[in-house]
Amino acid sequence: MNEAALTLEGWYALHDFRSMNWTAWREADDETRAVALEELHAFLQEWSSVEQSKNGSTAVYSVVGQKADFVFMHLRETLEELNALENAFNKTTFAEYTVKAYSYVSVVELSNYLASGGGDPKANPEVMARLQPILPKSKYICFYPMNKKRDLSDNWYMLSMDERRAMMRSHGLIGRSYAGKVKQIITGSVGLDDWEWGVTLFSDDALQFKKLVYEMRFDEVSARFGEFGSFYVGNLLNEQLFEEMLKL
Amino acid sequence: MNEAALTLEGWYALHDFRSMNWTAWREADDETRAVALEELHAFLQEWSSVEQSKNGSTAVYSVVGQKADFVFMHLRETLEELNALENAFNKTTFAEYTVKAYSYVSVVELSNYLASGGGDPKANPEVMARLQPILPKSKYICFYPMNKKRDLSDNWYMLSMDERRAMMRSHGLIGRSYAGKVKQIITGSVGLDDWEWGVTLFSDDALQFKKLVYEMRFDEVSARFGEFGSFYVGNLLNEQLFEEMLKL
Amino acid sequence: MNEAALTLEGWYALHDFRSMNWTAWREADDETRAVALEELHAFLQEWSSVEQSKNGSTAVYSVVGQKADFVFMHLRETLEELNALENAFNKTTFAEYTVKAYSYVSVVELSNYLASGGGDPKANPEVMARLQPILPKSKYICFYPMNKKRDLSDNWYMLSMDERRAMMRSHGLIGRSYAGKVKQIITGSVGLDDWEWGVTLFSDDALQFKKLVYEMRFDEVSARFGEFGSFYVGNLLNEQLFEEMLKL
Amino acid sequence: MNEAALTLEGWYALHDFRSMNWTAWREADDETRAVALEELHAFLQEWSSVEQSKNGSTAVYSVVGQKADFVFMHLRETLEELNALENAFNKTTFAEYTVKAYSYVSVVELSNYLASGGGDPKANPEVMARLQPILPKSKYICFYPMNKKRDLSDNWYMLSMDERRAMMRSHGLIGRSYAGKVKQIITGSVGLDDWEWGVTLFSDDALQFKKLVYEMRFDEVSARFGEFGSFYVGNLLNEQLFEEMLKL
Amino acid sequence: MNEAALTLEGWYALHDFRSMNWTAWREADDETRAVALEELHAFLQEWSSVEQSKNGSTAVYSVVGQKADFVFMHLRETLEELNALENAFNKTTFAEYTVKAYSYVSVVELSNYLASGGGDPKANPEVMARLQPILPKSKYICFYPMNKKRDLSDNWYMLSMDERRAMMRSHGLIGRSYAGKVKQIITGSVGLDDWEWGVTLFSDDALQFKKLVYEMRFDEVSARFGEFGSFYVGNLLNEQLFEEMLKL
Repeated sequence: MNEAALTLEGWYALHDFRSMNWTAWREADDETRAVALEELHAFLQEWSSVEQSKNGSTAVYSVVGQKADFVFMHLRETLEELNALENAFNKTTFAEYTVKAYSYVSVVELSNYLASGGGDPKANPEVMARLQPILPKSKYICFYPMNKKRDLSDNWYMLSMDERRAMMRSHGLIGRSYAGKVKQIITGSVGLDDWEWGVTLFSDDALQFKKLVYEMRFDEVSARFGEFGSFYVGNLLNEQLFEEMLKL
Repeated sequence: MNEAALTLEGWYALHDFRSMNWTAWREADDETRAVALEELHAFLQEWSSVEQSKNGSTAVYSVVGQKADFVFMHLRETLEELNALENAFNKTTFAEYTVKAYSYVSVVELSNYLASGGGDPKANPEVMARLQPILPKSKYICFYPMNKKRDLSDNWYMLSMDERRAMMRSHGLIGRSYAGKVKQIITGSVGLDDWEWGVTLFSDDALQFKKLVYEMRFDEVSARFGEFGSFYVGNLLNEQLFEEMLKL
Repeated sequence: MNEAALTLEGWYALHDFRSMNWTAWREADDETRAVALEELHAFLQEWSSVEQSKNGSTAVYSVVGQKADFVFMHLRETLEELNALENAFNKTTFAEYTVKAYSYVSVVELSNYLASGGGDPKANPEVMARLQPILPKSKYICFYPMNKKRDLSDNWYMLSMDERRAMMRSHGLIGRSYAGKVKQIITGSVGLDDWEWGVTLFSDDALQFKKLVYEMRFDEVSARFGEFGSFYVGNLLNEQLFEEMLKL
Repeated sequence: MNEAALTLEGWYALHDFRSMNWTAWREADDETRAVALEELHAFLQEWSSVEQSKNGSTAVYSVVGQKADFVFMHLRETLEELNALENAFNKTTFAEYTVKAYSYVSVVELSNYLASGGGDPKANPEVMARLQPILPKSKYICFYPMNKKRDLSDNWYMLSMDERRAMMRSHGLIGRSYAGKVKQIITGSVGLDDWEWGVTLFSDDALQFKKLVYEMRFDEVSARFGEFGSFYVGNLLNEQLFEEMLKL
Repeated sequence: MNEAALTLEGWYALHDFRSMNWTAWREADDETRAVALEELHAFLQEWSSVEQSKNGSTAVYSVVGQKADFVFMHLRETLEELNALENAFNKTTFAEYTVKAYSYVSVVELSNYLASGGGDPKANPEVMARLQPILPKSKYICFYPMNKKRDLSDNWYMLSMDERRAMMRSHGLIGRSYAGKVKQIITGSVGLDDWEWGVTLFSDDALQFKKLVYEMRFDEVSARFGEFGSFYVGNLLNEQLFEEMLKL
């Protein structure tokens, strides 16, 4: 059975983490800062209208701690659009006052382990809504990349499909028990970025991130096979909050 | 049994390690330095009054060696408050003379392994005092992040609750034998930062950090399952000592 | 049997990943930018004529995400030519507005596992076309370096030639099932750079990178023995698209 | 038995590795360089008189290769003194021409494995001389941090005290066979810095570092349980040699 | 048997990898560049006359890819001489236009596994020629550092001398089969730098590096016990080629 054929992919994702160069921002004159904020405003507007026309979605969050100051999470139909987005941003006056912190390239995916019966899944509007999701505007975001381990006797990719499906089912049950509390977007990045998956969680209660990830860690699929990268956690930024954050 | 449900969380924590840009600090004129010190003074005052009103707590320590020059350890009710704290700091003149060194996002936690009998633990003032602790003003601080290992036959998360509880009990006994000598604040960071826990130790005798951590290392829970990040050690800074440190 | 003797090598390869220094690029005056673009234009022309005269080949792609802004993948007959290429580029005005991001030195190789019967393989034009390939101008590129693992019982280099050949054959079948969808260039870098191989994939559908690499990951040769570095993915740049990317 | 209680600690240690910013040093005017050299001279004098009054000890060595240009190894009674030392240095004009390279915080320790019979060891002048050592002025220095491994069946901390003592005894015999050739200062850094120990070797023949460390590597305690960080090697700097090194 | 005593050491080695700061080099005026090139010329002359008087040897190569632009490999009698060499270089105008990339400190060594019968090996001119070698002026260089692994059942240092000798003999046979094609200089760095050995290969055919290292990788001593750092490969630089490389 072709493993790859059973996975469904939707929009491409770019997580674009940036830090402010606060010293430069403070040293800029008022006019320059006004120009920069106007550009930021224009981008946020544009991304919002892309989302309204269902051609993509963008989430904007601050990041707590020194890893970054904010993140743009963009979903778009093609890699070209994502590339154009970051290039357009890089050319702005505002970008001049930011520093690259981390980025992640992936694509929204629905796992084959959850695959139901017959028919073209892409004809199913529910499936399409999950492949081309409008990102929640929850109060908190959590992002981390992960692998399935391949370490001697703990090698996910040497397990049979049945073993993997059984473990993923139990894993899914934990996820489902957080329904209504945590919204989870899984993006695949095999062949696209350094880890195999990106996990983006949204919630109105940041503690739920901790509880969900901790509970899952005792599940065999995470306990034996999960390998995790850096975790980024942040607060929702709307236009007003973003301006407040940047106001000197 | 839901592992996550048995853990209690209190205030969120941000450890914010910074280095001075000594060259810039020396090149600043006296007036600018005075402004910067005044800002620092105002922050320390503000954090102190937050602590007095029991809405949070902040510890301020220097750091020995090149990893950083000082650390602010903030405890607050929400991630938004921690984010606001760092942004407010970043916008100051003083911050312009500092460089980011390391940060850690976590939340004060009481482990399920210590959970006692019935009743709502959050109704217990003793429990609440541990979940929303006023940080000690001991002479020394020690911070390090850590994981429980998941490495083939040394996999903490594949152990039964009973095995884990037994090991944690023995571990706790060592901790308790340092009562009065070392005060320990455990913060959980699963889903919040790159390691699973942060450990912050306070003592009036820095050697006790070494003795405690070394003794624990022979305990099975650390010996087989402990994975440790960088260790930061420092000396208490009050306003006067901080000014002395910055005085040219 | 001498393993090395059974491998065929062709052109040397240099993958040269660069980021733009956007702030400097924006601050340059129009004239300087015009000079820089003219230099870039001249290089692209020169590389194209080298390709037409079959003395080498060069692919130019943007890179999605913060790892880099673009990549030049050069194939040439000698290491001296590759060195000359990068030095010539480094001396330009254009290079002044770029920052080194990552590079990889390797040589096109045909594996001994695929070796057919007698005769001098280098006399075979089909073999030579694979050793000195003209790089495709597909819409997307994917590059990653990799090792074969040497970890206790998962040690590729302790397997017999027969075991390795059997696994590589199955591996090759997956690759072949993507014929027409993904073009694969394998370059060897044992003794030349930090990993043992570089893999460069070309496709008109970026999802095929994910599907191919994911499907292969379940194949024993990858599952047990594959160790992967960073993945870089990007979009084709012709002269017009490159200028567009750089236009302010 | 309490492992920690059996270890004796003496002076705290700060290894402070720095590189010169040669470009800035060259660009400074003669007067500024003279001021900087005068500051360096004053520090060296001060550290020397601390040593003469037996309140601490400082070794000053150049470092070969790009890792650093020189190292100050300070031994002092308290962490506050070490912190004051580095802060005082950071505030000088000379420090402006240096760049932080690496540092290590630890404390001189005598291992419990060597513990002899009864009595208060700190009443023994020989023990005190080892806990508060005057650092040799040998021609060469070698520093490296290390851990005892905790990796599945190679877990030092899961061995019995008897097993560890037997191995350490054999290890000590090798060390003793270099008596007169290599002087060894062991500093403990559990709970203080990123590794468990720092090893500082002094010799008038740099080859002895290689011979000693290589011979020990075959000893089970190193072979199975030693984990090593970066090695730094350097030449003695007295005032005259330091000035020579800095002279343009 | 004392392992260390059976190893012979010769000249100390410093591999000094540097990158050009091309932007600064381009911005320098003609006169400054002329001064810098004159300094470089003087160094190359001096190193060449040291070599002629058999007091050391220096190889100068460019490096392909972004890791570095060139490498000076110096062999000298003492660590002091190597330190003086780098300090002298750091003080030049030319050095101002370079950036440190990587360095390695080691000492030429002849392994005990090859030790023949009685007599003082240092009285043997052939042995001395290998301990104090004049570096070849081959067209290509390859450098990489390496360890012998100490990982559970794959622990080189827990093998008996006989097992190690047998494996090294087979390893040596592969090396010898490249006689006339690849010249190999082994330098030991236990106690001197971060890996246990440095390997420097010279050849007039860069492909031989790949073939030699690849063939050896199937040999048990490398397959099971070899751990490799970064690989650097480059082209010979004589004075004329160096000037050409730097000419704008």
